[in-house]
Amino acid sequence: MYTTLQDECYEANMQLPKLGLVLFTFGNVSAVDRGRGVFAIKPSGVPYALLKPSDMVICDYEARVVAGTLRPSSDTKTHALLYKTWSDIGGITHTHSTYAVAWAQAGLDIPLFGTTHADHTHHDIPCAPVLTDAMIQGDYEHETGNQIINAFRDKSLSHKEVEMVLLQNHGPFTWGDTAEKSVYNAAVLEEIARMAHLTLQLNADTQRLKDTLCQKHYQRKHGTDAYYGQGC
Amino acid sequence: MYTTLQDECYEANMQLPKLGLVLFTFGNVSAVDRGRGVFAIKPSGVPYALLKPSDMVICDYEARVVAGTLRPSSDTKTHALLYKTWSDIGGITHTHSTYAVAWAQAGLDIPLFGTTHADHTHHDIPCAPVLTDAMIQGDYEHETGNQIINAFRDKSLSHKEVEMVLLQNHGPFTWGDTAEKSVYNAAVLEEIARMAHLTLQLNADTQRLKDTLCQKHYQRKHGTDAYYGQGC
Amino acid sequence: MYTTLQDECYEANMQLPKLGLVLFTFGNVSAVDRGRGVFAIKPSGVPYALLKPSDMVICDYEARVVAGTLRPSSDTKTHALLYKTWSDIGGITHTHSTYAVAWAQAGLDIPLFGTTHADHTHHDIPCAPVLTDAMIQGDYEHETGNQIINAFRDKSLSHKEVEMVLLQNHGPFTWGDTAEKSVYNAAVLEEIARMAHLTLQLNADTQRLKDTLCQKHYQRKHGTDAYYGQGC
Amino acid sequence: MYTTLQDECYEANMQLPKLGLVLFTFGNVSAVDRGRGVFAIKPSGVPYALLKPSDMVICDYEARVVAGTLRPSSDTKTHALLYKTWSDIGGITHTHSTYAVAWAQAGLDIPLFGTTHADHTHHDIPCAPVLTDAMIQGDYEHETGNQIINAFRDKSLSHKEVEMVLLQNHGPFTWGDTAEKSVYNAAVLEEIARMAHLTLQLNADTQRLKDTLCQKHYQRKHGTDAYYGQGC
Repeated sequence: MYTTLQDECYEANMQLPKLGLVLFTFGNVSAVDRGRGVFAIKPSGVPYALLKPSDMVICDYEARVVAGTLRPSSDTKTHALLYKTWSDIGGITHTHSTYAVAWAQAGLDIPLFGTTHADHTHHDIPCAPVLTDAMIQGDYEHETGNQIINAFRDKSLSHKEVEMVLLQNHGPFTWGDTAEKSVYNAAVLEEIARMAHLTLQLNADTQRLKDTLCQKHYQRKHGTDAYYGQGC
Repeated sequence: MYTTLQDECYEANMQLPKLGLVLFTFGNVSAVDRGRGVFAIKPSGVPYALLKPSDMVICDYEARVVAGTLRPSSDTKTHALLYKTWSDIGGITHTHSTYAVAWAQAGLDIPLFGTTHADHTHHDIPCAPVLTDAMIQGDYEHETGNQIINAFRDKSLSHKEVEMVLLQNHGPFTWGDTAEKSVYNAAVLEEIARMAHLTLQLNADTQRLKDTLCQKHYQRKHGTDAYYGQGC
Repeated sequence: MYTTLQDECYEANMQLPKLGLVLFTFGNVSAVDRGRGVFAIKPSGVPYALLKPSDMVICDYEARVVAGTLRPSSDTKTHALLYKTWSDIGGITHTHSTYAVAWAQAGLDIPLFGTTHADHTHHDIPCAPVLTDAMIQGDYEHETGNQIINAFRDKSLSHKEVEMVLLQNHGPFTWGDTAEKSVYNAAVLEEIARMAHLTLQLNADTQRLKDTLCQKHYQRKHGTDAYYGQGC
Repeated sequence: MYTTLQDECYEANMQLPKLGLVLFTFGNVSAVDRGRGVFAIKPSGVPYALLKPSDMVICDYEARVVAGTLRPSSDTKTHALLYKTWSDIGGITHTHSTYAVAWAQAGLDIPLFGTTHADHTHHDIPCAPVLTDAMIQGDYEHETGNQIINAFRDKSLSHKEVEMVLLQNHGPFTWGDTAEKSVYNAAVLEEIARMAHLTLQLNADTQRLKDTLCQKHYQRKHGTDAYYGQGC
């Protein structure tokens, strides 16, 4: 029934340990099938080495299990709300990768310091504020999704131009056109976070990259006249 | 005679180099058999690559060798006292993992800065003070166990809610329901220690995670209504 | 036609992920054939695992594609200008390696603190200033080459004595007699950058290595009476 | 003729890349045959992947080549003087490992902060001062050996109790009863250097480990009543 979607989801999840982004059962990736209005997601608390494609749980945008025998990731409601709200994303990744978590725990946006960052977005990586007590004690994982969406609205950011966010005191969520792309963004975010951390240690007064260079690097890869890559 | 216990102990020890937690002969894991009142522990000073299951030494709660031809870990008396005092733990791990040792050498508790930490315990990771000269010159490894137990009593901590400790100027001890779980906790502690270190470098005034979120993450994984994992 | 050159270029590119200097499609290496006046370079945006020697694109010193079906690296014009200007270099490497990028983002030259650095050059590693807006909005990648060449001219540095540079807010470029040597220099630069970073964390007032020792280490490896290596 | 000695030297050298202590051709290990008054050492500038046991060069205590077709390490005179002066050491290792070099570049002794350090020596790791200009411009590598020996004499340290040293602005030398033990010490030194660096970042006022605990850990492993290891 959902074999192709489960395969895509499984392959993307298995990239997380290979890229050094997760320990034990930490992290999860989902992949959506827009035509059928469902997404596949990693089951909760299963080690990567034991995962099989058929273990991927199928859910709808209300986070209800549609198919699968295992319990889905405890973060499923966050994925569901992001898919429901941002109808043009194809995959979502959540990790507790070390440097991204450090920035989230410090409660700071990651400043745009160089072209590695600008190649992927021309904005700082936003850190959404910690949830209110009411949100935490309410429908927590659903509210986590709301907090991400609210942060993008409050900062007037486009989720197509910034495919990554930190959630204060928690860690990163990334997304993209496909599950694989969301994993790619998770790895890029971790590297950007590490570079920015080291930069501030060398020079605490480092200035943000000037806008002309931000735009140049972002547009040569993502603009209408992009010339990075093979154009396919 | 003790084959199953030795196998469990051996498998858990062999995880330490795979997880990057030990160098050469550093570190040791033990596994207890509560029915027989004995535990198996790594022999002293043997490289991991040369270990065999039958090398695991069997000791009782007074740290006396019951079976085995090799000398047990020099830290055996610490393990013995913890098993004797905390009758509901099943395995113990000691490492000199880098970031946990750095916190121990700095003599600081690891503050609870985020959900990665709260997923495992809702308390700071305690750093038990360095032993007194009398303790060091007395029955040192036995007193090391006492120092850990005293720290938990003095801080009113439950060893079931906090399965990890730093010993000042030395390094971490972790435990759990099984030897494997104690190794898992050793790896999680090292990662929490690293994240907290990086967090303070980014923002020296980082505040502890607020209690509602601590409780939420701890309870969703460990509470009576836990919904993390597969419930088995 | 260009098989030997493509093989050399391919082999050098494939060293980058092995040496931990690149993530995904980041980075590129080129190799020049001085007799024919062309160089081979990595195609743009292709993952290393998918590269084949025949994918290497052949370009001339004006960055025009001479042979190959793929689009060359977006940094091709920078390589072309360096080959055109510095007629005695044989290969060029560009990476976004972590510590070199951190120094570039901080906008700082890497000070010569020890013999690891002096073994490779007796100068600080220069950080060429960020491009002007006119350069960025003009022929950006060509101007990137100009900025490197200008920095060497302004600082009276020889590109034979200093085979590496940082470009502010961007990252490192390295070169050498061969493509392989340029990759070697990229790895050495990353290690020098990491050592210098750690040195300043330990002692913010660390002084530059004294000149007698700079000269000794550089000359024993690169001088007319060099005695490092096998002399072949 | 020297096959056993060359094999011992080769095996010890090949541990360096496996332990992550060297890049490319950096570093060298030697092994001595006290009966014959010669030592085997890595040839200069040969990558580890290309080394063969028969490449190890045989030298006497005056650093003269006794057997072998390749040029010996450029650091051979340093090894020779240490063997000549300290007649009870069996092997020597020199690396440019990252954290040890950082301490050497910062010109600082590594303070004894914990039991990981005390398990190996009960002294700070000394940093021998940078050579004078006369020493550098004279017989440099021989004087490097003198500087190490002088530092031990000036600080009243025993080379049997402290089997490691930093040379300011350069890097670490370690030794031991065998070549293999000297490599072991090189890896331990790198780990101690990293732990001490992280400790100071967490608490710049960290105090040195108290002497009772230094002695306890050193003696339980190295004293006359040592009980660490299998006593063989």
